[in-house]
Amino acid sequence: MIVEMSQTADADEARALQETLAARFGAVHTVWSATGRLVVCHSAGDDAEPGEVAGLAGVRRVVTSPGPYHLAARALRPAGSRVRVHGVEFGGPGFVVLAGPCAVESTDQLARSAEAVAGAGAALLRGGAYKPRTSPYAFQGLGVEGLRMLGRQRAVSGLGVVSEATQPEEVAKVAEHVDMVQIGTRNMQNYALLKEAGRCGRPVLLKRGFAATAEEWLCAAEYIMSEGNPDVVLCERGIRGYGRETRFTLDLAIVPVVKRLSHLPVVVDPSHATGVPELVVPMTLAAAAAGADGVIVDVHADPSAALCDGGQALLPDDFKALMGDLERVLVACGRELERP
Amino acid sequence: MIVEMSQTADADEARALQETLAARFGAVHTVWSATGRLVVCHSAGDDAEPGEVAGLAGVRRVVTSPGPYHLAARALRPAGSRVRVHGVEFGGPGFVVLAGPCAVESTDQLARSAEAVAGAGAALLRGGAYKPRTSPYAFQGLGVEGLRMLGRQRAVSGLGVVSEATQPEEVAKVAEHVDMVQIGTRNMQNYALLKEAGRCGRPVLLKRGFAATAEEWLCAAEYIMSEGNPDVVLCERGIRGYGRETRFTLDLAIVPVVKRLSHLPVVVDPSHATGVPELVVPMTLAAAAAGADGVIVDVHADPSAALCDGGQALLPDDFKALMGDLERVLVACGRELERP
Amino acid sequence: MIVEMSQTADADEARALQETLAARFGAVHTVWSATGRLVVCHSAGDDAEPGEVAGLAGVRRVVTSPGPYHLAARALRPAGSRVRVHGVEFGGPGFVVLAGPCAVESTDQLARSAEAVAGAGAALLRGGAYKPRTSPYAFQGLGVEGLRMLGRQRAVSGLGVVSEATQPEEVAKVAEHVDMVQIGTRNMQNYALLKEAGRCGRPVLLKRGFAATAEEWLCAAEYIMSEGNPDVVLCERGIRGYGRETRFTLDLAIVPVVKRLSHLPVVVDPSHATGVPELVVPMTLAAAAAGADGVIVDVHADPSAALCDGGQALLPDDFKALMGDLERVLVACGRELERP
Amino acid sequence: MIVEMSQTADADEARALQETLAARFGAVHTVWSATGRLVVCHSAGDDAEPGEVAGLAGVRRVVTSPGPYHLAARALRPAGSRVRVHGVEFGGPGFVVLAGPCAVESTDQLARSAEAVAGAGAALLRGGAYKPRTSPYAFQGLGVEGLRMLGRQRAVSGLGVVSEATQPEEVAKVAEHVDMVQIGTRNMQNYALLKEAGRCGRPVLLKRGFAATAEEWLCAAEYIMSEGNPDVVLCERGIRGYGRETRFTLDLAIVPVVKRLSHLPVVVDPSHATGVPELVVPMTLAAAAAGADGVIVDVHADPSAALCDGGQALLPDDFKALMGDLERVLVACGRELERP
Repeated sequence: MIVEMSQTADADEARALQETLAARFGAVHTVWSATGRLVVCHSAGDDAEPGEVAGLAGVRRVVTSPGPYHLAARALRPAGSRVRVHGVEFGGPGFVVLAGPCAVESTDQLARSAEAVAGAGAALLRGGAYKPRTSPYAFQGLGVEGLRMLGRQRAVSGLGVVSEATQPEEVAKVAEHVDMVQIGTRNMQNYALLKEAGRCGRPVLLKRGFAATAEEWLCAAEYIMSEGNPDVVLCERGIRGYGRETRFTLDLAIVPVVKRLSHLPVVVDPSHATGVPELVVPMTLAAAAAGADGVIVDVHADPSAALCDGGQALLPDDFKALMGDLERVLVACGRELERP
Repeated sequence: MIVEMSQTADADEARALQETLAARFGAVHTVWSATGRLVVCHSAGDDAEPGEVAGLAGVRRVVTSPGPYHLAARALRPAGSRVRVHGVEFGGPGFVVLAGPCAVESTDQLARSAEAVAGAGAALLRGGAYKPRTSPYAFQGLGVEGLRMLGRQRAVSGLGVVSEATQPEEVAKVAEHVDMVQIGTRNMQNYALLKEAGRCGRPVLLKRGFAATAEEWLCAAEYIMSEGNPDVVLCERGIRGYGRETRFTLDLAIVPVVKRLSHLPVVVDPSHATGVPELVVPMTLAAAAAGADGVIVDVHADPSAALCDGGQALLPDDFKALMGDLERVLVACGRELERP
Repeated sequence: MIVEMSQTADADEARALQETLAARFGAVHTVWSATGRLVVCHSAGDDAEPGEVAGLAGVRRVVTSPGPYHLAARALRPAGSRVRVHGVEFGGPGFVVLAGPCAVESTDQLARSAEAVAGAGAALLRGGAYKPRTSPYAFQGLGVEGLRMLGRQRAVSGLGVVSEATQPEEVAKVAEHVDMVQIGTRNMQNYALLKEAGRCGRPVLLKRGFAATAEEWLCAAEYIMSEGNPDVVLCERGIRGYGRETRFTLDLAIVPVVKRLSHLPVVVDPSHATGVPELVVPMTLAAAAAGADGVIVDVHADPSAALCDGGQALLPDDFKALMGDLERVLVACGRELERP
Repeated sequence: MIVEMSQTADADEARALQETLAARFGAVHTVWSATGRLVVCHSAGDDAEPGEVAGLAGVRRVVTSPGPYHLAARALRPAGSRVRVHGVEFGGPGFVVLAGPCAVESTDQLARSAEAVAGAGAALLRGGAYKPRTSPYAFQGLGVEGLRMLGRQRAVSGLGVVSEATQPEEVAKVAEHVDMVQIGTRNMQNYALLKEAGRCGRPVLLKRGFAATAEEWLCAAEYIMSEGNPDVVLCERGIRGYGRETRFTLDLAIVPVVKRLSHLPVVVDPSHATGVPELVVPMTLAAAAAGADGVIVDVHADPSAALCDGGQALLPDDFKALMGDLERVLVACGRELERP
């Protein structure tokens, strides 16, 4: 249950309301939002009569949610929410293409990739400076130096940049250099990291854990949002399956499923899901047709020399061709490419 | 390995070739095709040098295939194959919409559904007369009476009809009344049924088993094709997954995966995959964008009264709206609705 | 809901009861059993008050079941059922080891395997005469000749024999030569085959489909039982999973799960589940400790020459060692090896 | 490839060797161990001839490993490794039972649980002070206060205690109060946490991610070990599956699979895997028979009042009965209960 306070409520009224609710429901969780102060009663309180609460002083409205998440629930914002990143909007009519190399490897590599994705019409540049790798002996990213390279390409290309934080300590550093902080699939239930992302002041791209349910994913978003950050964009990136032809099983139906459960924008990562460049093109188009709000695509100027996941990256020319196909599908669906 | 004989080869040459191959590779499997006689050397023979065979008398060409299937392999027909059903073509530029109720329940129900799907522009009418049901006590279909109803609606609507056979004995009966014989997901490895479908003289719609690999699926197609029937259309209908919001996990990436491995057309069943009418629309559009050759959609004039899977059926009006959306996406992809 | 008739009820009373139930619940399904006539009201009737039915003339007792299956439900036989096969009993204190080659290949091969498994103390000999194979070009079994070889080894070894039927037409033939008819994993939802097995007069070993739920599996058993055959033994043989080290994921917890839902005995096939001989030993012991009523183990005198699944077979000496280990675990669990 | 240095090698020789290897293979990773200094050449170097390296000065032996992990590979310690925790040994003939409540809730609750598990013969007491919870509004554990309660019960009961760290900052605190640090399933790929655990000076219990492959799991262990901590015990706790009767699918075959790949001890958590107390008993016995080195079992003096996962906890009396059954199975397998 979410209790939204009236914007005219003052600090005394807020405190009084919290005390009343705490007395009735036990611990309550308070979140400040741009549109007022939200008070989230934890799930245990959901057997309450909303009417009982709606009449309390300072209450603007009461929203009940079906699951264990509240701030992420569709019921809170039935029209859907929009998330702005460096002049680009997720969740509106525009479809956001994030593209770039899996890992930032060098100034030159990043510059060539940035030029390619900007030239083809992508809205945001992505690149990993901190790479969570299965093996401790694999390339782990350039760290702060990589973030600085991203910052420079941001200035050159004019594109907003997105990069991943893999532990709580990295969040502030990443947030300082980039426009959107990514939480990776392995860290979807790294709660300390999620909370830090909830306090970083930047929009967050939250990848689905590769065996997460819709509920677990939305609860992960709730961790971020309950720290006061409403700007979460979800990203489906494939779930573990038995097939051997692709790295993961892209679960496209989760896009409309999650959009019914939540107001948050949803994008799709066809590159990590399939691991096969030839499949990235049809799956990008399918994601657009399924109603996703964007895609995140691996593009590398020289995939065979990539230090991480090169096998799945599109070449610049193939990416450019994809953007043309994508634009036609979007128009057919009443949408358009979001431009930076 | 597939050895394709020259069309000018006579019976003596054919026999001589078979004997030579048998002496070299052990048992060989011979299939007659419209374009000549194909001799399939079983997989054990794939360590042979194709050049060794290509020089034998009566041999037109030798094709090697990477998997345990040969006739279904892309290598045999790199340009893809087309399957015609009552004036409609799968695998060409047209996108085939099969629609209708999950089960034939009555003359009136079928007539109303047929009118709705024909009016909305579907290419083929589907309806089950023999229903494989999880429980022995559930409605098992109207049998021959259902087939006759389909035959009558075929005459009235002008649409070709598709219906399922669930055991070898039913195949000939189904083939007599309908234009395309469906093999269901539970029967994908019912080899006696597949062989019978290979001898029935009708195109076959082969659903993927709900935990089948691409290789197992194509081997099932091979069972049909190795009996002399080249007209197989594959149908992805969702695989078993851990999600609770949908009945199955629609594996859309299997469409381009299978199209790379095989020349056979591939369609998608978003109704059985999701079990949720609201998800059928985005998943149909996504299937089109992913490169599928068609979809099969549950449409029922009165879903709440359906005897089988009513919960997933689209209402006629929703189906009509879907067809409009679909047409726009197809045009954007350089395709068009296949018209009956 | 199951309505069990009094044994003293005569034909007129039976008919009258069926008519009364049909008028109240729609179609009812009648099964004759050794202990009287069971009338199964289909699931739609389960909203009935049992008390309402219990008072009808000729009714001995009324049992309600939680799922869509009735005859297989634990509620019908809370103490569990026992299934006898050639002097061996499943479901009692004894633990039944079925062993032998995956496929019958020759008189000599079968004789050597039978001697090995009999010598090591197995209770039943298994061997496939009809083999459902993924590829149409793979060895499909010796057919009737294989059944005759099994019959001869039955006489020589004194062991009861078990073999698979893969299509309805084969059931009678298999039942004629062997003591127990196996239904394979691919055919768990081949309903025509299940019904034929329900009329064959032999106990049936029903393998779980490799992506079947407990409910689907028990509904498959219900298909057999609703034709009048109460002698069904369930067999867990691994489900499809993402792991690459084993062929399937052995789901041992399904043993106690199914035993709580159903009164039927349950055995485990560690050979097909893992596909790795070294894993067959620990998984056999684990199955015994988990409460299974037996195991079915691939044993081959010369695995490297096997025509089917040789890679997973135990050598006779390894099987003998396993039997010793198994016996100790069984004793620790208060059970013992069932002896032929 | 692992290069083990001679114990007589001095610092100069070590440096020279590292330089030689770095020149030949690029970056090398050095780990100090009790038995000398191990130099791990990263996987990229595995195309090297071991013989080429074996002859270098200061090299005691060279071990090649088949996967991307080296220190965790069986090849390094073919006889298996043993991990000691407060007088108890994992990986030897003894079978270690860790038991206790999922979460530490109060002094009284912990005391009653500790008394119950100690009285029944468990070797180690477990209890969570930091709880990673799906919902941010659920009980998150008592934190340091919980650790202190564990410390007091350690003194009272004499049992070593085990508790989870969920973020890098917590590791040192947890390590200070307990004998073994647990890494939970959600954090199996939280690499910063794993590295911190590798530097904490305590043995680590590493749960398998609920969709992790064997290779990913062993790579996670490698993260810990490559920081110098050789004392890792693996814990299988169920993988995500489609079944609805249990929370997860217990993958018991992974026990012998991982034991072939790695020298590390492996234990099983039947409580989280199944979520059903009645299934904990058979699955504990099955784990023992499958060759596991221990189990970790939820025991709670008053499950209905538990703040976390109470539904899966065993009552003290049921746990005691289980210990009796377990001991008999262990003896049958040539093992015994490890006593504190």
